[in-house]
Amino acid sequence: MIVVIKPHTEEAEIQKLVKFIEGQGLQIHYSQGINSTILGLVGDTQVVDTHKLRSNKIVEKVLRVQEPYKKANRMFHPEDTIIDVAGNKIGEGYVTAIAGPCSVESEEQIVEIARAVKASGAKFLRGGAFKPRTSPYSFQGMGATGLELLLLAKKETGLPIVTELMDLSQLDLFEDVDVIQVGARNMQNFIMLKELGKIDKPILLKRGLSATMSEFLMAAEYIMSGGNEKVILCERGIRTFEKATRNTLDISCVPVLKRKSHLPVIIDPSHATGINWTVESMAKAAVAAGADGVMIEVHNKPEEALCDGDQAITPAEFDHIMNTLKKYADIEGKTI
Amino acid sequence: MIVVIKPHTEEAEIQKLVKFIEGQGLQIHYSQGINSTILGLVGDTQVVDTHKLRSNKIVEKVLRVQEPYKKANRMFHPEDTIIDVAGNKIGEGYVTAIAGPCSVESEEQIVEIARAVKASGAKFLRGGAFKPRTSPYSFQGMGATGLELLLLAKKETGLPIVTELMDLSQLDLFEDVDVIQVGARNMQNFIMLKELGKIDKPILLKRGLSATMSEFLMAAEYIMSGGNEKVILCERGIRTFEKATRNTLDISCVPVLKRKSHLPVIIDPSHATGINWTVESMAKAAVAAGADGVMIEVHNKPEEALCDGDQAITPAEFDHIMNTLKKYADIEGKTI
Amino acid sequence: MIVVIKPHTEEAEIQKLVKFIEGQGLQIHYSQGINSTILGLVGDTQVVDTHKLRSNKIVEKVLRVQEPYKKANRMFHPEDTIIDVAGNKIGEGYVTAIAGPCSVESEEQIVEIARAVKASGAKFLRGGAFKPRTSPYSFQGMGATGLELLLLAKKETGLPIVTELMDLSQLDLFEDVDVIQVGARNMQNFIMLKELGKIDKPILLKRGLSATMSEFLMAAEYIMSGGNEKVILCERGIRTFEKATRNTLDISCVPVLKRKSHLPVIIDPSHATGINWTVESMAKAAVAAGADGVMIEVHNKPEEALCDGDQAITPAEFDHIMNTLKKYADIEGKTI
Amino acid sequence: MIVVIKPHTEEAEIQKLVKFIEGQGLQIHYSQGINSTILGLVGDTQVVDTHKLRSNKIVEKVLRVQEPYKKANRMFHPEDTIIDVAGNKIGEGYVTAIAGPCSVESEEQIVEIARAVKASGAKFLRGGAFKPRTSPYSFQGMGATGLELLLLAKKETGLPIVTELMDLSQLDLFEDVDVIQVGARNMQNFIMLKELGKIDKPILLKRGLSATMSEFLMAAEYIMSGGNEKVILCERGIRTFEKATRNTLDISCVPVLKRKSHLPVIIDPSHATGINWTVESMAKAAVAAGADGVMIEVHNKPEEALCDGDQAITPAEFDHIMNTLKKYADIEGKTI
Repeated sequence: MIVVIKPHTEEAEIQKLVKFIEGQGLQIHYSQGINSTILGLVGDTQVVDTHKLRSNKIVEKVLRVQEPYKKANRMFHPEDTIIDVAGNKIGEGYVTAIAGPCSVESEEQIVEIARAVKASGAKFLRGGAFKPRTSPYSFQGMGATGLELLLLAKKETGLPIVTELMDLSQLDLFEDVDVIQVGARNMQNFIMLKELGKIDKPILLKRGLSATMSEFLMAAEYIMSGGNEKVILCERGIRTFEKATRNTLDISCVPVLKRKSHLPVIIDPSHATGINWTVESMAKAAVAAGADGVMIEVHNKPEEALCDGDQAITPAEFDHIMNTLKKYADIEGKTI
Repeated sequence: MIVVIKPHTEEAEIQKLVKFIEGQGLQIHYSQGINSTILGLVGDTQVVDTHKLRSNKIVEKVLRVQEPYKKANRMFHPEDTIIDVAGNKIGEGYVTAIAGPCSVESEEQIVEIARAVKASGAKFLRGGAFKPRTSPYSFQGMGATGLELLLLAKKETGLPIVTELMDLSQLDLFEDVDVIQVGARNMQNFIMLKELGKIDKPILLKRGLSATMSEFLMAAEYIMSGGNEKVILCERGIRTFEKATRNTLDISCVPVLKRKSHLPVIIDPSHATGINWTVESMAKAAVAAGADGVMIEVHNKPEEALCDGDQAITPAEFDHIMNTLKKYADIEGKTI
Repeated sequence: MIVVIKPHTEEAEIQKLVKFIEGQGLQIHYSQGINSTILGLVGDTQVVDTHKLRSNKIVEKVLRVQEPYKKANRMFHPEDTIIDVAGNKIGEGYVTAIAGPCSVESEEQIVEIARAVKASGAKFLRGGAFKPRTSPYSFQGMGATGLELLLLAKKETGLPIVTELMDLSQLDLFEDVDVIQVGARNMQNFIMLKELGKIDKPILLKRGLSATMSEFLMAAEYIMSGGNEKVILCERGIRTFEKATRNTLDISCVPVLKRKSHLPVIIDPSHATGINWTVESMAKAAVAAGADGVMIEVHNKPEEALCDGDQAITPAEFDHIMNTLKKYADIEGKTI
Repeated sequence: MIVVIKPHTEEAEIQKLVKFIEGQGLQIHYSQGINSTILGLVGDTQVVDTHKLRSNKIVEKVLRVQEPYKKANRMFHPEDTIIDVAGNKIGEGYVTAIAGPCSVESEEQIVEIARAVKASGAKFLRGGAFKPRTSPYSFQGMGATGLELLLLAKKETGLPIVTELMDLSQLDLFEDVDVIQVGARNMQNFIMLKELGKIDKPILLKRGLSATMSEFLMAAEYIMSGGNEKVILCERGIRTFEKATRNTLDISCVPVLKRKSHLPVIIDPSHATGINWTVESMAKAAVAAGADGVMIEVHNKPEEALCDGDQAITPAEFDHIMNTLKKYADIEGKTI
């Protein structure tokens, strides 16, 4: 960590700050420049409160040299994390497809879709029971009944379940869920993250609408710091000025996150663009960019979907996409 | 609501859609253009699921003509909402100052600050007991003890309390809190919003980091649709590409939100820029733009603050700002 | 085009507006809703000045139903445009690589790189003679001498040249240049676009840092409306809040632009992220997403490059990327 | 400047880099941390090419400690720059109003508006002769005739003229123009900036739609490095995800730019929001925030304006705003 001192600061004041920092167990390297004095802090700088340093009247700037996350950081954990759910793996070397409808709507719907996506090669079934909707007047999901139907579909097909937890009060219902999804709007719900750090279940963490990659990894760190290191990072589009797509898929986060961290990185093309006719090209781009998987919304009757039908594709379209992705996975030498 | 039909669509298919829409109790006005056919939907279009319409294969675009919120909409509620907490009012005609530290740290600290800000004209005391911090390794607030100290400061000074609820599990502890704050990261925590719609207490709702004004008002609508119409909108900076300030204060949301809605609109300059030496100019700009109040972080010893010391100002600086704001409020004919 | 009238407007005033619009040769479809009256404008709405309509006191909103561009619009020009420069094609069905250094630095440098990239399969040589640099104290390019060296490299290798025009005053020097690049910062230099509409040379138009796709296509329309329809659209990253990459590659613009327009769409991964170790994954993603080509910065000695060395790759790395892209092009059934 | 070395780099390689940097006349302070080695560069770091450093294989990161601009930097020029055009001043201590229509449309129009805004207290007349329009099919301004009409209005009223230069080829026509405006889209037209650095006339430089404050000041530096130090910075809204306003007025740039630089900072509320009914509140906010002036679009018949009528206000509205701004200027102790 670098602390830049304001010009014309008296030496005595700098020495006071130096002592304060050394008091936290850090060493200081002192650089006297022409226009500024710079302190290089050496040691475990994660303990340093940068806001506090910045509020010091003699401090011009504080620059972090290292990322503030540890457990999610590849520097301290060079091997790729591969998450295994009953033999279905997510991580480097695999292209894992998670598929299913936005919302569970009925037994018939979820079982039909589950069978179809399994046949096409999906390894996990997704489906929403509790739905975060921007309007209080929209369909809010089937709730506990939806969870039961998902588990029924799991029983029928063997596909492990991925579904979203919207509030900690629902957690008891999630005991048989295989992978708990934290939605984009909850990426910085720190109380939820901490609780999920205490359980032993993979967490599929979606990137917040305007979260930087560094904040995304800090959210993963929140979960991991509690002991649960099974975190799957899922990019689902970020908010920009562009309005032709619902969000902007930040495809470059794939190589960057995978270099900064050892955690699996998957892409959700359906939410990223919100347009079903872009799902194929974006899913292919995800695999080409090195993603460890894709999460795709599939609905047997998109025009009748109770939620987000405009971004869902049909089982037939999903089957076609999976066939293409297999060719891409082959080129990359990955298991799909 | 306007539905644009794709070019070269067969008439029979359009008629099928027309019937489907009419089946929801809406009337249709039909416009045949050169390159496109347009359906104008007339009636209570809030019931219409735009995603579903968009997923229809003959639909090119769906455009909303009216805002999707009702209770927060000035069109259906022309009079300004003024919220009154034991005689302290927030709403049109008033410039209300809410002040206090980022975090409650000790009895001495919170009481000293409460007395100082009251003397300078603040009408509410703010202070964090539960703190949302981006790093799991940072100070997370005093929790329930912090709430007790806030109530103690209220007893000493008579200032009503504003403090943040981070999770519904904490709600029982908030019985004596006067105004519950929903943080920016919880602006779309829909389950929390719904619960807060059932209680009878003003809610200070912070705008999400990348929430549009329309989404902000929809979040207010979530609370209001449950029956609690006492919502205070608080702009606290949005996320942009600019990095010289922590966020970008969207000052134009003041006139726009106040025109679209009847709810009070206040500004939090401290979080908006994250820089204490901009708080004065931004607070003045807020009042000049027509804001109904400001929420300012004040700390007796910013350099020792356990959180966000770089954006806090001292009681003396706060006193100076309040004196200036009084002159501005006078020009605007408002009570401060 | 839809014009929404403010509530409680008197009928006589609406009729005045209706007459004004009909005076421009348009037909009006009139919809009377519960809370609002809507006018549907039918005819050539490109002549309508939406700002003027919005400034009318009885108008609440103006919504465009159709895109404001014509010549760039696939609706009026369904066949893909394929640009041919001496047999080197850019457009649907091809994956065309344009490669070369950020700046021309010497004869030796540019010829060596040209030979290398040609051997690896590049069809065009790029190189900057006039360089837009954010600091006036940085290297500004070799200017006219740089252009001469590029033409020399063309002579040596046969590769057509792509290079950037920074100001119309330089246009005379570009006579032998094959493809003129308009940089991101000039995407809305309307005087330049108009002049380039008068010449008979392909224009590689880079997307502005914060340009929407619609604005990007309107910039192409500026060139095309002058008669020059040979425009190549190049996405090079947009500006977002994310700072881990220099810009954010908007990969979804590939399918969206190709659906809205018939023009070729290529990707510049080097500028999009500004990080050389992401170029390979982003180039692959571009091809997978359906891009018609890639433009890649290659330097024989990146560490000694006079400009942007951090995003350049070596000829050996470029060769490796081209080999991978060939496999991707094969899957897609495209010529590379 | 700080250079962070990658972990596990061999000492010999670091020494090579140290020698290379020292060869540029800089001193190096060397810090050996636990996980990283840091080099502190001391001296005139403006000569250092950070891209080149970043492309070095042993370099992890390069962090700038100081701003890259010199002439625009308050650190090297602590006194405020006040620009004087025939006694009309722009800079600290003044609130200067620049007003006039988007486009010059006729002698009658421009003279009538000029007289009105002068009577209300405007010190400069603005008006567009050459108009940057996003559609090639929109009105493009009157061109040279428009300039003549502006000069005629100047003769009639004595108000100095501010008008936009769209391309260097027009520069000869600007001899009698008092202040040359560089539009937002030309903020990084570096060739234009350099040429304007050679003339002796104030330049009103508009902030680019997605330019950071640092880039904005670098654009000013381009002009100033050529010798012309009379630059007025004008904030006119930045591009964000918010669509309720055309752009987002970044009001916090006022205190930040004025602290980083000695140049005058003014606000253009008309373009910032694009909504005429927000102009008053935004103009007041600008003065409250410390801006040195405002630039406001005024049209005698906004509903008939040939350009941007939706953001223009009438002379009567302008008069009302000026009366309010006078009260604000009084509180701030400034001359209006």
